[in-house]
Amino acid sequence: MKALVYLGPGKNALEERPRPDITASTDAIVKITKTTICGTDLHILKGDVPTCQPGRILGHEGVGIIERVGPAVTTFKPGDRVLISCISACGKCVYCRKLMYSHCTTGGWILGNSIDGCQAEFVRIPYAETSLYRVPDGADEEALVMLSDILPTGFECGVLDGKVAPGSTVAIVGSGPIGLAALLTAQLYSPAEIIMIDLDDNRLEVARKFGATQTVNSADGKAADRVMAMTGKRGVDTAIEAVGIPATFELCGEIVAPGGTIANIGVHGKKVDLHLESLWDRNISITTRLVDTVTIPMLFKTVGSHRIDPKLLITHRFKLDHILDAYDTFSAAAKTKALKVIIEA
Amino acid sequence: MKALVYLGPGKNALEERPRPDITASTDAIVKITKTTICGTDLHILKGDVPTCQPGRILGHEGVGIIERVGPAVTTFKPGDRVLISCISACGKCVYCRKLMYSHCTTGGWILGNSIDGCQAEFVRIPYAETSLYRVPDGADEEALVMLSDILPTGFECGVLDGKVAPGSTVAIVGSGPIGLAALLTAQLYSPAEIIMIDLDDNRLEVARKFGATQTVNSADGKAADRVMAMTGKRGVDTAIEAVGIPATFELCGEIVAPGGTIANIGVHGKKVDLHLESLWDRNISITTRLVDTVTIPMLFKTVGSHRIDPKLLITHRFKLDHILDAYDTFSAAAKTKALKVIIEA
Amino acid sequence: MKALVYLGPGKNALEERPRPDITASTDAIVKITKTTICGTDLHILKGDVPTCQPGRILGHEGVGIIERVGPAVTTFKPGDRVLISCISACGKCVYCRKLMYSHCTTGGWILGNSIDGCQAEFVRIPYAETSLYRVPDGADEEALVMLSDILPTGFECGVLDGKVAPGSTVAIVGSGPIGLAALLTAQLYSPAEIIMIDLDDNRLEVARKFGATQTVNSADGKAADRVMAMTGKRGVDTAIEAVGIPATFELCGEIVAPGGTIANIGVHGKKVDLHLESLWDRNISITTRLVDTVTIPMLFKTVGSHRIDPKLLITHRFKLDHILDAYDTFSAAAKTKALKVIIEA
Amino acid sequence: MKALVYLGPGKNALEERPRPDITASTDAIVKITKTTICGTDLHILKGDVPTCQPGRILGHEGVGIIERVGPAVTTFKPGDRVLISCISACGKCVYCRKLMYSHCTTGGWILGNSIDGCQAEFVRIPYAETSLYRVPDGADEEALVMLSDILPTGFECGVLDGKVAPGSTVAIVGSGPIGLAALLTAQLYSPAEIIMIDLDDNRLEVARKFGATQTVNSADGKAADRVMAMTGKRGVDTAIEAVGIPATFELCGEIVAPGGTIANIGVHGKKVDLHLESLWDRNISITTRLVDTVTIPMLFKTVGSHRIDPKLLITHRFKLDHILDAYDTFSAAAKTKALKVIIEA
Repeated sequence: MKALVYLGPGKNALEERPRPDITASTDAIVKITKTTICGTDLHILKGDVPTCQPGRILGHEGVGIIERVGPAVTTFKPGDRVLISCISACGKCVYCRKLMYSHCTTGGWILGNSIDGCQAEFVRIPYAETSLYRVPDGADEEALVMLSDILPTGFECGVLDGKVAPGSTVAIVGSGPIGLAALLTAQLYSPAEIIMIDLDDNRLEVARKFGATQTVNSADGKAADRVMAMTGKRGVDTAIEAVGIPATFELCGEIVAPGGTIANIGVHGKKVDLHLESLWDRNISITTRLVDTVTIPMLFKTVGSHRIDPKLLITHRFKLDHILDAYDTFSAAAKTKALKVIIEA
Repeated sequence: MKALVYLGPGKNALEERPRPDITASTDAIVKITKTTICGTDLHILKGDVPTCQPGRILGHEGVGIIERVGPAVTTFKPGDRVLISCISACGKCVYCRKLMYSHCTTGGWILGNSIDGCQAEFVRIPYAETSLYRVPDGADEEALVMLSDILPTGFECGVLDGKVAPGSTVAIVGSGPIGLAALLTAQLYSPAEIIMIDLDDNRLEVARKFGATQTVNSADGKAADRVMAMTGKRGVDTAIEAVGIPATFELCGEIVAPGGTIANIGVHGKKVDLHLESLWDRNISITTRLVDTVTIPMLFKTVGSHRIDPKLLITHRFKLDHILDAYDTFSAAAKTKALKVIIEA
Repeated sequence: MKALVYLGPGKNALEERPRPDITASTDAIVKITKTTICGTDLHILKGDVPTCQPGRILGHEGVGIIERVGPAVTTFKPGDRVLISCISACGKCVYCRKLMYSHCTTGGWILGNSIDGCQAEFVRIPYAETSLYRVPDGADEEALVMLSDILPTGFECGVLDGKVAPGSTVAIVGSGPIGLAALLTAQLYSPAEIIMIDLDDNRLEVARKFGATQTVNSADGKAADRVMAMTGKRGVDTAIEAVGIPATFELCGEIVAPGGTIANIGVHGKKVDLHLESLWDRNISITTRLVDTVTIPMLFKTVGSHRIDPKLLITHRFKLDHILDAYDTFSAAAKTKALKVIIEA
Repeated sequence: MKALVYLGPGKNALEERPRPDITASTDAIVKITKTTICGTDLHILKGDVPTCQPGRILGHEGVGIIERVGPAVTTFKPGDRVLISCISACGKCVYCRKLMYSHCTTGGWILGNSIDGCQAEFVRIPYAETSLYRVPDGADEEALVMLSDILPTGFECGVLDGKVAPGSTVAIVGSGPIGLAALLTAQLYSPAEIIMIDLDDNRLEVARKFGATQTVNSADGKAADRVMAMTGKRGVDTAIEAVGIPATFELCGEIVAPGGTIANIGVHGKKVDLHLESLWDRNISITTRLVDTVTIPMLFKTVGSHRIDPKLLITHRFKLDHILDAYDTFSAAAKTKALKVIIEA
């Protein structure tokens, strides 16, 4: 089969690889119909993810059709259409039983990382019954691809951890795909204001279309002042960090109101300064989280009832044969204005 | 009347001062029967609290008897025995109506800070009806002095924000009075393990008497390793920071388990390093809080029903005439083993 | 001044009455600009509310302008535009300090009940600072009249107590004004399905316009069967009772899913059958509540940001001189299709 | 093997039966070391549980040793000591993934009900990995038998659903084994008062030993009056129903304070009167629940740390050969003062 393979820093290729086999009784083999590329895949390509070694098929998102199941799988059968969670969950370890699937002791984020992933014609999914979700008849496959990772990540790490609530004031720092996913799903809780902050006016314009009530270009270093002015000097109830660098995290600390929450989504590569000398008495919370994807069933329903439209995130479409073009387009997002790309297998 | 007055960095004195008057219709004048000294009073003496200017009567804790009330006060009358909250709450601003009394727009921590305080024969209490608590007949006054500040601080900022729960594992970094207050009140939620961490073996011995199940002397810099060993490499569900320096905060980050909480109580004077490069995917929360004292009524009940014994914290007793000795004793705690001192007015 | 006065069962009249005076230092006198009639006012007229005696000026909703304030009122001044809460809250009793204003020991629902109310040119508001809300400049007065009672009632008693959540399935039994208020505010939480149940096809048609995704006319006694069919035999996550009779409450018990909630809003005059023989093992909650109006500030913001439009509820408008016509129209709702009527003073 | 078999209403016998076999890949066969009898077993014997047909081996509680596991079971192996949950959880259905194991679509309470149970030398446990709990070395087996059902039932259905909190006032109606389990586990949350109500002075005396702060014999029909007197006419924050008849449920409605909770544990055979005419405006919650046993791991820890002592519930011990005597003793509890009996296999 065809598969996108990581070959070491800066190198990937579309190669011919053998089809995956069932290796555990709880596995399923899924024929991929649609997949996508995640910002994390670009991190891997930079050589920043040591758990992912050369030779690995990348990708942890997608929808497809069950091809085969292991003998312990009773709730899926060949032919079932399924959504793949980016998180593999055994369903029985101490973390899974607290619904913290991201920390599953034998699973978690392993697809396209420590085991072969979804950017291929077929993929082996461990713990199939607790890591796949049946796709309802008539559901839009492209929309659902957004539910493998990006939408639950924005929602769980940003919106839920950030305690977004009706009437509240939210700032989202970073208007890339993940910040926009937070923006889309934040609206499920009807906040009064959503202020989007980014360096790129194009992305801020997209944010307005997606529902931001105000935007701030932070290029001049005065974003905090402007957010404080917009909020009557009070600050925001929820500040969502969706970039992953010290400056954006620290901005969140400057704009969070007493009693508010800073919800970190960004993947950080180094430490940040936490200004406890000004925050120790502010009654705030700071949260971090790797997505658990426990909200996939709920997001399914909100998509089905048209409360949110994840397809807004999709800007480009490619065939699997042209996945290297897809990588080029996605990694040149500033130029191509790519948000999420669909790869059709 | 006699009053302990702050005279500038390093200087305080017992002086003769005029009795306070009612200045607003919601005020009460309280004749102090018992008060105490807080670690914050020592901070003021060092000159570290700019809102507190020379000439100020210190103290924000105590019990006493209502002497006079302003015309708008209907729920208290002269002769009533009352507990004074360290936080003055107007009861009507946006923060008070969210029960965030610490951020009351015209109150908060003002006693013995921006207005005269309780280390005197009489004190004026603003917003009396929402800042004083009736003392039940037969209640032990000394025990109740601990409810003005230290017990609700340990409980709200440490135990509640830290989400201490039955069966959970808790570490408290800092076995001073505030850490011990967290230790006492944590037991209201029946955690399985409470690990106390400090540099001072004497204080750790006290912690064992107060209910710590394990203790760690962190002098050798290996506290994190030992806590991880004690918890099967998993870490603690709740790490309570009760010191207020970068090293102790960072220790909390090293020992918190995935899904856990770091609850900061310490007053910090400078920024800390937050190692998001290792914490971004740990699904943790970090909280900060100035005490709101909203739990005083509940703590009253737990004291009344002997679920906790706040008098354990009291090590020394003085008359108001000897309050300078009390300050000496309290500030030389390493030598005197003082935890909380009672000043009888 | 002119005032609508209850004269005993079945009798009310527009009478000339003296203007109210300040009687406590925390009072304010408000000149009414707009008020409305509540279903509860009709209950009073039937003689069903013994706390409301003949001679009482009715009405507990409205907006107006501060005319005078008592000496203890510092946050409002003459000329301020204010919204009146139907609940008077002293802000200092044990219930107010738990944000359960409805059970304020000296307040609660007293306006137009045990003290004179808002269907007049002027009204005295006790505990003004914790019972009035400043109206933002540019706000629509008619919309805000809906925030005195009906919108917070639907929201607090129905939506919040019913734990409506993104993606959930909600049934509302009763499509009168209060059921419709629940329907409007439920959408702040983006449920996937809202099934409206009533006997009157006109009201169900209104419900569809207000956002119901499905409707059921329960006249044939088969509503439960139809709701179960609509939900794949699972039942609803939230069943909101918005009528107040045994049959509608019991219907909620038949359609609630395991793990779901029955939120009662209806005012009940007699006991209901609770079928614990089938519900004891269903893991459900049943809630009752008199509105606390603690969500008024939050609802203000959702109205200001156009997340909900309370004016949808307003069907008729009258001058105070014609308030008896307004009563006729409102009490003949089946014929007039009245939902809420605005009375301009 | 020997097994206690239900033979129809009023009839059971110790019979010789074949050892159970693995029938699904997720099964385990457990050699029972200790089991017990539940009140529900007596209900079955009365013929009140139609899902349990004659020929069934009874029992849904116990500890034992893994004898064999199915091919999909990887986390247990022969020789492991395990605790059996009374609830079988597949771990993958919609309810299990919400931690509502009691409503598992293919499991739930099936042991000793629709499949053979634990009052035998061996038992087949379906979904072994999510229905068994590893017993720590050195743990007391008798204490752990109480964690199969009775302790989590009292805790989840009574204490957690009842929102017992530090300083709160709790009433428990029914001082039988399940009420006493609620009493023991309520103390994990340090309520100020626990009032135990029963008809039997012996049981109330036991309750005092178990930690009740006050007791009320309700034989004279004046229990509600006495509880109201004990609580300053306010009522209790939490009323736990632990009997299962209309009178005891209705008593809870009479004594619950505004803002309080009625947590039903009792198994009800007929409807009850719910007095909404007095409760509709009291801001209360009523909960029902079949135990999910999700708290078994947490209860393990509280037992291990001696926060509670479940062995207090054990009054009698028998060998499996004499299990009919154990049934006689347990069913004549009024005379024998039996609470829980241990059966050693």
